[in-house]
Amino acid sequence: MEKELGERLGKLRKERPLVHNITNTVVTNFTANGLLALGASPVMAYAREEVADMAKVAGALVLNIGTLTAELVEACIIAGKAANEAGVPVLLDPVGAGATPYRTESSLRILREVKVAIVRGNAAEIAHLAGEVREIKGVDAGDGSGEASVELAVRAADKLGTVVAVTGREDVITDGKKGFIVTGGDELLTRVTGSGCLLTSVMGAFAAVEKDPLQAGAAALAWYGAAGEIAASAAGGRGPGSFQVALLDALAGLGEANVPKGVVRTLHISPVTGGGAR
Amino acid sequence: MEKELGERLGKLRKERPLVHNITNTVVTNFTANGLLALGASPVMAYAREEVADMAKVAGALVLNIGTLTAELVEACIIAGKAANEAGVPVLLDPVGAGATPYRTESSLRILREVKVAIVRGNAAEIAHLAGEVREIKGVDAGDGSGEASVELAVRAADKLGTVVAVTGREDVITDGKKGFIVTGGDELLTRVTGSGCLLTSVMGAFAAVEKDPLQAGAAALAWYGAAGEIAASAAGGRGPGSFQVALLDALAGLGEANVPKGVVRTLHISPVTGGGAR
Amino acid sequence: MEKELGERLGKLRKERPLVHNITNTVVTNFTANGLLALGASPVMAYAREEVADMAKVAGALVLNIGTLTAELVEACIIAGKAANEAGVPVLLDPVGAGATPYRTESSLRILREVKVAIVRGNAAEIAHLAGEVREIKGVDAGDGSGEASVELAVRAADKLGTVVAVTGREDVITDGKKGFIVTGGDELLTRVTGSGCLLTSVMGAFAAVEKDPLQAGAAALAWYGAAGEIAASAAGGRGPGSFQVALLDALAGLGEANVPKGVVRTLHISPVTGGGAR
Repeated sequence: MEKELGERLGKLRKERPLVHNITNTVVTNFTANGLLALGASPVMAYAREEVADMAKVAGALVLNIGTLTAELVEACIIAGKAANEAGVPVLLDPVGAGATPYRTESSLRILREVKVAIVRGNAAEIAHLAGEVREIKGVDAGDGSGEASVELAVRAADKLGTVVAVTGREDVITDGKKGFIVTGGDELLTRVTGSGCLLTSVMGAFAAVEKDPLQAGAAALAWYGAAGEIAASAAGGRGPGSFQVALLDALAGLGEANVPKGVVRTLHISPVTGGGAR
Repeated sequence: MEKELGERLGKLRKERPLVHNITNTVVTNFTANGLLALGASPVMAYAREEVADMAKVAGALVLNIGTLTAELVEACIIAGKAANEAGVPVLLDPVGAGATPYRTESSLRILREVKVAIVRGNAAEIAHLAGEVREIKGVDAGDGSGEASVELAVRAADKLGTVVAVTGREDVITDGKKGFIVTGGDELLTRVTGSGCLLTSVMGAFAAVEKDPLQAGAAALAWYGAAGEIAASAAGGRGPGSFQVALLDALAGLGEANVPKGVVRTLHISPVTGGGAR
Repeated sequence: MEKELGERLGKLRKERPLVHNITNTVVTNFTANGLLALGASPVMAYAREEVADMAKVAGALVLNIGTLTAELVEACIIAGKAANEAGVPVLLDPVGAGATPYRTESSLRILREVKVAIVRGNAAEIAHLAGEVREIKGVDAGDGSGEASVELAVRAADKLGTVVAVTGREDVITDGKKGFIVTGGDELLTRVTGSGCLLTSVMGAFAAVEKDPLQAGAAALAWYGAAGEIAASAAGGRGPGSFQVALLDALAGLGEANVPKGVVRTLHISPVTGGGAR
């Protein structure tokens, strides 16, 4: 996998894919700077008048419902349909799904009307989308212990008919039949607003250069985790403010010298149980 | 007071209250990261379809009119009423009140329709809300010299029927009958956009764990000032960019080791003058 | 020119002009902090109910279409007309003009309905506004090689009837008859989201204290380039996250000690060719 990780980052850096984000007001700057640092070309466009035009020329479209409004939901659907027609992969970050009925319903509506390639969320968000109630508090992550996350991701992928990534201490990405577990990262990622949102956009950047969403998603998870570790080492002791700055530096500094090793494990899913023996 | 300050921060860290912010687009990221650093759980939600659902499960609701629109004013009122019904404290930051009639009127409309626990602003903003004209330029603070601020805060609290915090070189918080003067902080706080907005949200976090708004507000002012001093010491010499990063680090690093000492003084208000002899 | 550069920054610091920005959600925080660091007084106001009131008391109005919506275009025009009536200079940043028809048309509509003092964009954006198609990808800059940029800027200034600044490796600012070429800056500026947007707002701050838009624009370009170099020297080796922080520090630290020298060259435009012999 190390070879593929290196190649995928190299391809991303070379092609500099345009990643169209319809995202929340909290994370726009951090997302754009994170994508730029990684080597992608971010664009934010929200108006119903232009989202289809932007989405169809993008390498990936990332929909994020963190501060959704009725207008934004419409924009997401218009952009999503245009992306679908143009063969542009669509990713969904259902920020805070379950925190209010509106977030859950809007996420599910997007999933019904748009063909989504990857949904990335924390365990609580994904559980709500899959119709399995879990406690959620605001938009923060549950910690997603490994075994439960695998089973949840598999069930959600089956139910939603899309690749699902459940991120937490360990990350799982699966289409319900196969997938990967990815380790790495740092606890400080949970202390930076929008670190999950940026991760979804990073997945979008990799999906723009790698057709298989499982492979693209695993590469994004692995490299993002590596950046988190590098940033924690560079600045973590000073606190979350310094870590956030260092994370952008680390994303820009990713390369052959720091290809993450041994962090991606193949997930073996038993067809009988539908569960997550690995 | 030192003991109480320590206990309140400890309670905040333990309970990790959900602070629902309806805030301006300039400061969303900084506010969210500041609350996370402090130990609270921030959420931003603006849509009329969901603000009531979010506000009623929050520990506090913070309304900030920094980049208000007609839709946001409606959202503030819907959320505020839901918070009132659920017993969730509501805080108001009237950013730039007086700079345009729309800001003053929208602030006063929120104050009429929602029971607000604490209003925090600079001297010019509070003077405008109290119907006392003062020069204001954009959304920046007047410097609020001590004596005048105390009297202004007392009059505004009487008139608005809420706890009022006037922040500046010295901070005053009062319900019109009693209150506190809080010192500390650093001049560099005035060089970071949204340092006042974040302070109001920090007050919200303390109000979520301490019912008395005067006590909660004083704790927030004291701890925030301490964080400002720590940040100035860590990075202030480099400039406001470094200071902003260091402020997030400092909020995360607050604890028993740096309980602010001697910064909170009880305010003695003469019932005859209504003024601020202390 | 060095003397004038020093005087203009001194005037800006002394007058602290209010710069009213109607800008995109990606860069609001960075723009506000950049203006504050420089010594200006930023305000963001978007509501149709208040933009005219704010614009007419501002020192400059900066319109940025980075995440435009129909409501924002209306707000830009209302604010622009109010600024025109009050004699307040209006600047336009046509972010991503050409990336979608909506952006191009909205930019041109603003230019038709509002008297704009300075338009600043990268070569692709300006070429699209001038009706000369160029490849554009998202909202990122073409690199704008010198000779071509000069000719483009001259043609665009003629066509649009305004001062045009085309920024890239070298910056050109011209009214079609005379102008300046400004060198300086650092490649890392292209790795920070909104560095161009902030530059337009910095031009607004200088335009608030210097009536001649060519002189104001040249001063802004020269000082911003100097800040970029200082920031790259302070933090560039660590990466774009650190550079962004250092850029704010550098803007605050500008002064007599680092007046940029020899970076502004007078542009000689041949009236026969309309081109850019210099």
